[in-house]
Amino acid sequence: MYKGLLIVVSGASGTGKGTVCKKLLEDMPKISYSVSATTRAARPGETDGKEYYFLSRAEFEERISKNDFLEYAEVYGNYYGTPLNEIETRINSGESILLEIDTQGALKVKDRCPEGVFIFLLPPSLAELRKRIEGRGTETPEVLEKRFNAALEEISVGKKYDYVVVNDEVEKAVEKIKAVISAESCKVSRNLNEFEMIGEM
Amino acid sequence: MYKGLLIVVSGASGTGKGTVCKKLLEDMPKISYSVSATTRAARPGETDGKEYYFLSRAEFEERISKNDFLEYAEVYGNYYGTPLNEIETRINSGESILLEIDTQGALKVKDRCPEGVFIFLLPPSLAELRKRIEGRGTETPEVLEKRFNAALEEISVGKKYDYVVVNDEVEKAVEKIKAVISAESCKVSRNLNEFEMIGEM
Repeated sequence: MYKGLLIVVSGASGTGKGTVCKKLLEDMPKISYSVSATTRAARPGETDGKEYYFLSRAEFEERISKNDFLEYAEVYGNYYGTPLNEIETRINSGESILLEIDTQGALKVKDRCPEGVFIFLLPPSLAELRKRIEGRGTETPEVLEKRFNAALEEISVGKKYDYVVVNDEVEKAVEKIKAVISAESCKVSRNLNEFEMIGEM
Repeated sequence: MYKGLLIVVSGASGTGKGTVCKKLLEDMPKISYSVSATTRAARPGETDGKEYYFLSRAEFEERISKNDFLEYAEVYGNYYGTPLNEIETRINSGESILLEIDTQGALKVKDRCPEGVFIFLLPPSLAELRKRIEGRGTETPEVLEKRFNAALEEISVGKKYDYVVVNDEVEKAVEKIKAVISAESCKVSRNLNEFEMIGEM
């Protein structure tokens, strides 16, 4: 049985990882997002296990104490986390899973799952990054400058990833990520069974 | 300046590496074969520096003593070798080079150039491998059995490569190798300049 891949796509705010991941899943329907767990209340139309696993605060904290999350964070009073167990089960059954995640979370995932495929998206240029950050809303120049500097900080951790893809055009970036996925599936370390098969014949 | 890739395609006899490499170069005209050096005489129509670098025995042995070959071998009284210097120059100028080479030679290249991309071609099955080896000519059963066993021996070294591609259909195998080349170009370790560029701005 072939194992699936854990594909982690990350990048600083403003590099367009959401758009890239959406297009990637359209092109590769066999890959699916990992489902996160959260303590925030389900909104109308949301189903447990589909958009999120909805947990109580006590349940979430119990799973934290059992080291059950690949990574988790508390945002505005609610926990959000990536359940390790669910990802392992799906990967072992041959499914590939996409994790679209911030740079801090990605490095935690790398510690726990070094066999994942870590892809870092870069903006085409700093000028373009600034434009994208400014284009988001009507923040004050100080807030924008802070966000821009935070993005620069995030970019510097990109060296710890396996692959870097410049997101100048979404289509091109997606093609590169597809090539990375295809190449990773050919890695000898992921195909040792091919050699065993031959040895047994 | 981006460096090119040294792409090493190897595999046991009968796995069809010649056909795969030919198609790959048709699809990716920017990649070219490395030019080997040899002490055999040039045949009519062959040009020095194109099919081979034609060297005298003394020249070849001098270059061996200077460790100038990535790998070399003596076959039926003639030397054949892969000049390191030429490959380095071309790769440093951004060209990617394809080396189609037997398994013994490939491992020697890996020792000298671990940053190369080592792709191992597998036959779709041992039955198919046997068929391909038998289909080559009119050898005795003993010779065929010997070749088949030698091929099995060669396959076992495939685990030392980076990637394994099953050559069930030439087109599919070539697509996978193209994905490997594209992915390798995205490796963070080959793109550290992207991060430096951002740091300097």
